[in-house]
Amino acid sequence: MHRIIYVTGGARSGKSSYALSLALGYANRYFLATAEPFDDEMQERIRKHRLERKEGFTTIEEPLFLDRALSLLPVSADVVLLDCLTVWSGNMMHHLEDDKAIDKCITALLAALPALSCDCIVVSNEVGMGIVPENPLARRFRDIAGIVNQKVAALATDAYLLCSGIPLKLR
Amino acid sequence: MHRIIYVTGGARSGKSSYALSLALGYANRYFLATAEPFDDEMQERIRKHRLERKEGFTTIEEPLFLDRALSLLPVSADVVLLDCLTVWSGNMMHHLEDDKAIDKCITALLAALPALSCDCIVVSNEVGMGIVPENPLARRFRDIAGIVNQKVAALATDAYLLCSGIPLKLR
Amino acid sequence: MHRIIYVTGGARSGKSSYALSLALGYANRYFLATAEPFDDEMQERIRKHRLERKEGFTTIEEPLFLDRALSLLPVSADVVLLDCLTVWSGNMMHHLEDDKAIDKCITALLAALPALSCDCIVVSNEVGMGIVPENPLARRFRDIAGIVNQKVAALATDAYLLCSGIPLKLR
Repeated sequence: MHRIIYVTGGARSGKSSYALSLALGYANRYFLATAEPFDDEMQERIRKHRLERKEGFTTIEEPLFLDRALSLLPVSADVVLLDCLTVWSGNMMHHLEDDKAIDKCITALLAALPALSCDCIVVSNEVGMGIVPENPLARRFRDIAGIVNQKVAALATDAYLLCSGIPLKLR
Repeated sequence: MHRIIYVTGGARSGKSSYALSLALGYANRYFLATAEPFDDEMQERIRKHRLERKEGFTTIEEPLFLDRALSLLPVSADVVLLDCLTVWSGNMMHHLEDDKAIDKCITALLAALPALSCDCIVVSNEVGMGIVPENPLARRFRDIAGIVNQKVAALATDAYLLCSGIPLKLR
Repeated sequence: MHRIIYVTGGARSGKSSYALSLALGYANRYFLATAEPFDDEMQERIRKHRLERKEGFTTIEEPLFLDRALSLLPVSADVVLLDCLTVWSGNMMHHLEDDKAIDKCITALLAALPALSCDCIVVSNEVGMGIVPENPLARRFRDIAGIVNQKVAALATDAYLLCSGIPLKLR
């Protein structure tokens, strides 16, 4: 069976760098990017992430239908780095009409991951360890992102929590 | 001695489900619920939690005086699941007049837990790993909830941090 | 080589108390405080922290140039407790003119820590596990604090995450 390596952590905890370092152990590398450059700050963050990855990856950009993006991987792929589930949760909330459409989209990813013919490294964020947000949309986002984390982590063969740049093995 | 099992984690980290799964290992189960259904969203959350528990528990509802609620448990009880300390901290802040009354209420719980004649599973939340809240009430809540967590966890025979649905053993 | 012991955790997670308990194992103790008493709440927090430390430490207060403060330590010092990096990140953001000045200040600390002639216990905060803050300044603060955590933790010989008062060994 192929490995599904789940890497989570807070903002600026070093999770993307750690996931990258794991991916560099593979030969033919793909990167599945979920971020959409909807403002200047986001463009700058994406630009920095791209620079960090340099030339070592073939990048696929897909904000919503991750199962379809994963189905495009060639059989020659050794690893795909999916970064990240939390941005994806935000995209689903923004673009899909209701909970049912979001559930369908999540279910499709959960079916696609174990069927991959290469290893997969999945990056996510811990967003639920602060105060309950006053904004109802932020609470809904927190719920969706948390459920996505639980469901994907349940499929993982390996899981890490990054804390101040240090990986802590969860599984 | 009876076990005090402390289960913490962020919102949607799977802590209540994990606590439930631990409780299902016992025969005669009690549930001590601290949540008050003060709005529709809360009612919905409570409803979902009740459904998840189904028929396997005798439920006691008590928002404030947890020591009194625990004293109602029959000697035949095998386990009580207390869910959760963080909602309780909010209730104390809302209903009790000052820090002194809150301290008294906390002290009463800390005396009651080790005196139980059955095992106890206590659920709480990590709420202090985000940005310092601008709202002074939110800062005060964060302080109270954090102190409660420290004091109850100090009594625990077992402690877990849930992270993306995965339990990490703290003690 | 001297030890650099990194202690992180959320608000009210018991990190300062745990760092203090570690420091009490040393004879000649110094405390490097980064907090500035800019309002009543902060003054009260500093006062409480001082009381907790009592008479066992020689205190140096320095909000910005931690490398200079560390250079003042006598050779007779056995340990210095630096509390905390997160307040320091806020101070740098508030007082220094731009990212370049902040980088310079961080670089100076990173050079000073391994050159110490005594052990060092460094306290920091996890601030990135909540919802993305709406305020751009808060997002910038979160980025700076997170980068500082990663860089200092990378130098640490020992690292702990405090969770509900329980230390979890990261390294």
